[in-house]
Amino acid sequence: MQQTRPASDDGSSGESDAIVMRPIGRVHSSRATVEDDRWDAVEAFIELESPFTAEALIGLDAFSHVEVVFVMDRVEPGKVEREARHPRNNPAWPRIGIFAQRAKNRPNAIGTTICRILRVEGLRLHVHGLDAVDGSPVLDLKPWVMEFGPRGGLRQPAWITELMQHYWE
Amino acid sequence: MQQTRPASDDGSSGESDAIVMRPIGRVHSSRATVEDDRWDAVEAFIELESPFTAEALIGLDAFSHVEVVFVMDRVEPGKVEREARHPRNNPAWPRIGIFAQRAKNRPNAIGTTICRILRVEGLRLHVHGLDAVDGSPVLDLKPWVMEFGPRGGLRQPAWITELMQHYWE
Repeated sequence: MQQTRPASDDGSSGESDAIVMRPIGRVHSSRATVEDDRWDAVEAFIELESPFTAEALIGLDAFSHVEVVFVMDRVEPGKVEREARHPRNNPAWPRIGIFAQRAKNRPNAIGTTICRILRVEGLRLHVHGLDAVDGSPVLDLKPWVMEFGPRGGLRQPAWITELMQHYWE
Repeated sequence: MQQTRPASDDGSSGESDAIVMRPIGRVHSSRATVEDDRWDAVEAFIELESPFTAEALIGLDAFSHVEVVFVMDRVEPGKVEREARHPRNNPAWPRIGIFAQRAKNRPNAIGTTICRILRVEGLRLHVHGLDAVDGSPVLDLKPWVMEFGPRGGLRQPAWITELMQHYWE
């Protein structure tokens, strides 16, 4: 990670420092194009790339789940929402701020998904439940630690429960 | 988000494209220096910065929790682990790959923490349970959606349960 001078070609104020990251690997997925739903049908693994070695994954198979931090790099810059919109442009749902939904057309376009670990084979981490298309850059992998789960009662609005109805299947 | 030519001053191979991100806001926290434990004592809010407005947070208070994606920018580049080490350098725990632990000295130094939402006030999102120090850049906010929680049985090794013993308190 490095601090660099900001550019100002993306609608930002240019006042904040840019942050430069490098992928640690890529998603290899049976799904090549972005779709809304039915991600459970997808087979996927993450493969670490140089300079990383299998050392970086030692002990990961003692966890049941991993959080995959990736970049949704098929997002078109011109479609990024910075304010509020109807989720999936469905007027039946309320107008919601971009940081109150998980839509892909968001600033920085980071995805974070908690996947079941199937197996680790050398540089490859095979997972179930990864909603990322083939070739997506991966920025980080973190084991799912129970103590980091949400604490206290859970609450979410009706629109997101409806939206998620066919998301996995 | 933009693709740029990679630099090669950080030990990476230089083969992967760099990814440039811009903070959407900052962490304002009662904790100014990095510590291992007792994060529940910390009071914190995230404040969005220009060009973002309160529009981007509409509807977030209908969720109980939010995932905060931030940068652990106090990490010294020379201390980043790319292979494996004993968590917290404690030899009583096994040697673990950096992507099988949540240590801060990691490539890209992204933190992802699920926090309880206390209230939203204009550009400010007040939360409980944020393990980020004052001034940390925030890259994204995502509502905690129950259907994105880990599915199937949970399993984690003994060392992480021990490590987490005083993490919140």
